[in-house]
Amino acid sequence: MCSDDRSEAAQAKAPGPFTIDAFHRGGFHLVQPAGRGHRAGLDAMLLSAAVPDGFAGRLADLGAGAGAAGFAVAARCPDARILLVEKSPDMAACARQSLALSDNAALSPRIEVLEADAELSGPQRTRAGLADRAFNFVIMNPPFNAPRDRATPDALRREAHVMADGMFERWLRTAAAIAVPGGEVAVIARPQSLAEILHALKGRFGAPRALAVHPRAEAEAIRIILTARKGARGGLTLLPPLVLHGPDGHAFTPRAEALINGRAALFAG
Amino acid sequence: MCSDDRSEAAQAKAPGPFTIDAFHRGGFHLVQPAGRGHRAGLDAMLLSAAVPDGFAGRLADLGAGAGAAGFAVAARCPDARILLVEKSPDMAACARQSLALSDNAALSPRIEVLEADAELSGPQRTRAGLADRAFNFVIMNPPFNAPRDRATPDALRREAHVMADGMFERWLRTAAAIAVPGGEVAVIARPQSLAEILHALKGRFGAPRALAVHPRAEAEAIRIILTARKGARGGLTLLPPLVLHGPDGHAFTPRAEALINGRAALFAG
Repeated sequence: MCSDDRSEAAQAKAPGPFTIDAFHRGGFHLVQPAGRGHRAGLDAMLLSAAVPDGFAGRLADLGAGAGAAGFAVAARCPDARILLVEKSPDMAACARQSLALSDNAALSPRIEVLEADAELSGPQRTRAGLADRAFNFVIMNPPFNAPRDRATPDALRREAHVMADGMFERWLRTAAAIAVPGGEVAVIARPQSLAEILHALKGRFGAPRALAVHPRAEAEAIRIILTARKGARGGLTLLPPLVLHGPDGHAFTPRAEALINGRAALFAG
Repeated sequence: MCSDDRSEAAQAKAPGPFTIDAFHRGGFHLVQPAGRGHRAGLDAMLLSAAVPDGFAGRLADLGAGAGAAGFAVAARCPDARILLVEKSPDMAACARQSLALSDNAALSPRIEVLEADAELSGPQRTRAGLADRAFNFVIMNPPFNAPRDRATPDALRREAHVMADGMFERWLRTAAAIAVPGGEVAVIARPQSLAEILHALKGRFGAPRALAVHPRAEAEAIRIILTARKGARGGLTLLPPLVLHGPDGHAFTPRAEALINGRAALFAG
């Protein structure tokens, strides 16, 4: 991922200063607010890797931000059609700007943006554009920190980072409603949230598979990536972890490098 | 672990055919029923390794069976005093036989057997000999398989292997009652049980630390070992996993070998 400021057209339309960042070694580019809001990176790339190679069908990216995870799925899975769902008008505007970039012309026809809150329920959710039983896959990278975890200085970043109590319950309720029977969900979160996630899956998605992400082989996990299938039965499977960095602590491991750059998937299809 | 049949005295008193098995490379021996009941092995050794080196105080081993995990803690931690809690009269008899073996004379003064059901509650539990706020550490390796998982041919083995719904709720309720404030609990279970365990910990034990046990580096986890502290706050920490076997698939890894033989602990104290 790297930034430049070459798109003057996009600059003119965006709600403030922004950057254009390359992902998948230039496979696609994202317009992102500069110095404010949530900036996509590793988490979005790892989340997208939870979608198996060859996935075909409709995928909703809940809380898509600038759209990094959804774009990454579109780039790796040529038969995927993506809906980026984002409640922040600023971030949704960035996603629309990304769709207009000529660099993304090969992907844009398969990606749409919906400005909507992932926590809506019932008829409000349907009216907002999220139809029941419409998606084969739902991915989510929900706001990250517990309310007291960290004071974030700007409002846009706070919106993306502050997790309210019961959030996974509401987000997974939406995922279960909009997924087709047998559809899958993928979540990336902190290990601290695993209890809440497993509880919220109950009665909605079953046979969860989880994978811990460790920065180094001997360090505690910093993320958990979890997939589950709507209506399936069966308890948790724990897959071998993903280790991000080798013994030198800097370079990515070959597996992490492949996942981050859209050359591999985390789970078999 | 290996068996012999040298103790004719023990043979005479046990309720049926049994073996005497060496653990910790001969550090202690256990009388176990031959060909029936639950036979202790890897799980009990890994559970015992969840107790930190240098642990001093009272420890209850709930559902102790023949006492393998409790004996292993006693062998590694010279200031630990152990209560083996087992509801099966046959298994409790085996544990008492083990205490009488001359090979265990150095450990036996610090180990007692209580024939009681770990699922008792309230005054019944106290009357059975499990006092509230009396233990610094509680360990448990509860019955293992979900009711429909496997048909076990004999009644004694079934008792040890068949897990009833809500079992972790009842076992952790007991653990929370008998642990001192700030006391710890350790559980070994299948990954499928993690959701139920995390749910049952809530409001009782906090700041859980979990570690997955993988038979080989590239295989799914077969066990999860989890510790938590009574009254502590904080979400789950996922530690680097334990891999049992090296690439050849047979020999234990050096770390697994050390844990199984009482030469290392899983967590720092």
